[in-house]
Amino acid sequence: MGAITAVYHALCPAADAAGLARAIAVEQTVEVPESLIDARIDMEIVGKVAAVDPLPDGRFALRIEYNPQLVNGLPELLNLAYGNVSMMEKVRLAELELPPEVLARFRGPNYGVEGIRELLGVHGRPLLATVLKPRGSADDRFRAIAEEFALAGGDIVKDDNNLIDESFATFQRRVALCHEAVARANEQTGRQCLYLANISVPLDRLERYVEGALRLGVKGVLIPPLLMGLDVVRDLADRHGLLVMGHPAFTGTFFHDRRHGIEPGVLMGTIYRLAGVDISIFVNHGGRFDYSPAECASIAAAARAPLGRIRPALPAPAGGMSFERLEDMTREYGADTVLVVGGALLGRTGGVGKATEAYLGRLRELFPERLVAPRRDGAPSRPLPPGVGEVVHHLPFRADFTWEGRAPAGYKKPGELPYRDVVRHELLGEAGEETAFSLRYFEIAAGGFSSEEKHVHTHAIIAVRGRGILTVDGKRFDLKPNDIAYVPPLTVHQLRNEGGEPFGFYCIVDRERDRPRAP
Amino acid sequence: MGAITAVYHALCPAADAAGLARAIAVEQTVEVPESLIDARIDMEIVGKVAAVDPLPDGRFALRIEYNPQLVNGLPELLNLAYGNVSMMEKVRLAELELPPEVLARFRGPNYGVEGIRELLGVHGRPLLATVLKPRGSADDRFRAIAEEFALAGGDIVKDDNNLIDESFATFQRRVALCHEAVARANEQTGRQCLYLANISVPLDRLERYVEGALRLGVKGVLIPPLLMGLDVVRDLADRHGLLVMGHPAFTGTFFHDRRHGIEPGVLMGTIYRLAGVDISIFVNHGGRFDYSPAECASIAAAARAPLGRIRPALPAPAGGMSFERLEDMTREYGADTVLVVGGALLGRTGGVGKATEAYLGRLRELFPERLVAPRRDGAPSRPLPPGVGEVVHHLPFRADFTWEGRAPAGYKKPGELPYRDVVRHELLGEAGEETAFSLRYFEIAAGGFSSEEKHVHTHAIIAVRGRGILTVDGKRFDLKPNDIAYVPPLTVHQLRNEGGEPFGFYCIVDRERDRPRAP
Repeated sequence: MGAITAVYHALCPAADAAGLARAIAVEQTVEVPESLIDARIDMEIVGKVAAVDPLPDGRFALRIEYNPQLVNGLPELLNLAYGNVSMMEKVRLAELELPPEVLARFRGPNYGVEGIRELLGVHGRPLLATVLKPRGSADDRFRAIAEEFALAGGDIVKDDNNLIDESFATFQRRVALCHEAVARANEQTGRQCLYLANISVPLDRLERYVEGALRLGVKGVLIPPLLMGLDVVRDLADRHGLLVMGHPAFTGTFFHDRRHGIEPGVLMGTIYRLAGVDISIFVNHGGRFDYSPAECASIAAAARAPLGRIRPALPAPAGGMSFERLEDMTREYGADTVLVVGGALLGRTGGVGKATEAYLGRLRELFPERLVAPRRDGAPSRPLPPGVGEVVHHLPFRADFTWEGRAPAGYKKPGELPYRDVVRHELLGEAGEETAFSLRYFEIAAGGFSSEEKHVHTHAIIAVRGRGILTVDGKRFDLKPNDIAYVPPLTVHQLRNEGGEPFGFYCIVDRERDRPRAP
Repeated sequence: MGAITAVYHALCPAADAAGLARAIAVEQTVEVPESLIDARIDMEIVGKVAAVDPLPDGRFALRIEYNPQLVNGLPELLNLAYGNVSMMEKVRLAELELPPEVLARFRGPNYGVEGIRELLGVHGRPLLATVLKPRGSADDRFRAIAEEFALAGGDIVKDDNNLIDESFATFQRRVALCHEAVARANEQTGRQCLYLANISVPLDRLERYVEGALRLGVKGVLIPPLLMGLDVVRDLADRHGLLVMGHPAFTGTFFHDRRHGIEPGVLMGTIYRLAGVDISIFVNHGGRFDYSPAECASIAAAARAPLGRIRPALPAPAGGMSFERLEDMTREYGADTVLVVGGALLGRTGGVGKATEAYLGRLRELFPERLVAPRRDGAPSRPLPPGVGEVVHHLPFRADFTWEGRAPAGYKKPGELPYRDVVRHELLGEAGEETAFSLRYFEIAAGGFSSEEKHVHTHAIIAVRGRGILTVDGKRFDLKPNDIAYVPPLTVHQLRNEGGEPFGFYCIVDRERDRPRAP
């Protein structure tokens, strides 16, 4: 199995270079004094210094080979390549080479360059993207920008990264408006402009926002991987088959000092692709930020370079683009590029539609555009969760306390926490219904009891039939039909039937929840 | 509502300072040219430049006030305070002040300084922690280190951040071995040494690893927030009530250049606490990394400084600790500190137990140790969200279809969609209960009807009393008591009572939901 090779560029006296290389190899793998490293650990775990070479600028290139078995996924890879090294002065991660066995553990971008071109049906020229901003504008203004851009033949319209919503409801309304405006425009043009929604929200809401956008037909998202967590993006892309546009917010500290951090191409090219980024936005040189042409070129090159079976991504220079720079920019980056034109396009006299036509016209003069039919199915390359599409509206109740369309089930698996004579009916939430909760009916026979347990999730209980006893946190409550009870987080509780009749109750729980634990 | 105040230290010509401040205020909020900012957006959305002051070192302090309503959670806060600014040269986030309304959205550390001291029963002196390493050692070696350390009276033993397992099975075996060894030692000593497991694993496995550790009785984890995602840590801590020890891997780029990045105290003190970090490890000055005493002191101060209702955290200097430096270190950091002694303790002649005793002995000479009984229940002492504490466990049902403790309310506000004779009772979800859903009871009088409407959120309905008619998407369902019904997203629906008795039903909805719309 090939090694994971990291090349660090370090500023140090020549006499210290080999020692520094060994110190990094130790720091990144075992982090102990040399005296605690035995021969086997040195052989199997500690990184190997493969080369120490002087660089023209007086620094040294320290080539270290790591055992690929030290890595399962992205967090371990980031930790190995740059975790503690990040705290060393004047050491930069300049190159990262991954053997096929490690690359095979990553899925990479769901679409990549070719997938996006097929989705759009646009070949031969750079793609044109614009941005919905400024935050604070009315939703109708965003809708109008999206619509005019799509009607004029624009390729991708994305939310600004500052475009964050107060609530899921406002997110959903805005995304629905913009996506539907683009979809209607696409019907007129026969093209397939894509709208990408910003989902920089707290993790506990992320799933809901992504699912909400996908349900509306949105195919992709804008997300800042460094700010949200690189593996959060990887996990989202893997599970939902999303088209991911990566935003560079929070990346600047990695590049700012050219003798420290991570080479832009490694982070925003190679590592972003491992995280599933299809389009990597980076700040263009000559704009509001101080990136050099060489750094921008290195990102573009790494986004498109061979990387095992992992699809190439589209580099997307942004920030300070203008009509005047279009020729230079496109000559520099080539056809497989997304040009992100935000302020310059929104601010152009004549309106968004005219500006879009002007930019596209110029691109067509510079590159031989080839249009084919967009891939309409555009399916987020994965199936919908099972059960969707067969949703049942009505579960009629039967006099024996069962429901048509739902069979009773066991209470817990054998070997879990102890209980006696409990039957569970899953009513709603587990068969494709789109709820944040599950509704169940439980029945405890005379003399039976549920497990005594606790968990972070809570219970809402509606008593239905017979009498029962609920103990919560040592307190006892007698329940009769239509009594409501609530069990707060991490409080020990149990339900018992000490009467002669069956005790039945509905119990509602969060659909995403932790596993019950013993008291 | 008070502003979110960020102070940036910037190196620029004096004539440019005010302009740079405005440029940052615009960049972080609306990111458009000035010509696209109208008066309302400037007032409501764009950051306000509150002060531009010269600093003694020639830089300028740019104080910018942001509207706190631009932020829901941690990703938005990070984006607002430092997202795009990270890509500006020579601008550092030096201070971050959060108003009580923003702080109230964060739970912070589950234990904090006092919670950890109660758990351990150790007061008055710094806590001693050690590290299980090097990776590659046999599990039995780790078990032995943990056991000897605990038997000698050590406080906290944690996995090394490089200690990553091939699989869940190997993780579980190692964690069980080490945790149980510590638990057995605790039975002998009467103390409560804590073992913290490293969970730097890919996100799709994270839940399983954390639950696996919790099931074994482990109370806390080691996790690198910058590498895993700050909001990943926040979400984990919130949901599981974990004790979180934050590791500094991947943080170095924020501090390396003192004219860029984020002030260490802001990132590893304030922001880590928002992410739920109870113990913040940072690299000590004078060790293998180049941090200054002032930077270390600023982390320690920010970890313990007042921050609304958010608990203080324990600063944990690590890296290059030695017996000889103990007195200086503890004098510098004070009693409320965790001293992380890894290699120096493992490598000391005489073994781990003797070394632990030596370190603890010295600490007791320097500080007046006070031991009390450890808090054995060890329940995560979570800061209670508002409203909790008055949580009602039981809402007894009255024969007239009302509930003790809950008054009925109107159905909709006047002027909303049309309806007739409907009463709503909010039962659970709106009074501080921690649920992802709300449970309501509705009653429609004879001849009444609910609004005909649609929305993205769904309804789960349980009929309770009388007879009713549900129409969904043009289909009609007759409901009798205990019938269950489901209304999918964006389908037009209405409930009607055409009988002579009141028609009552429970209706469960997602707590975060969109507003109903006309058909």
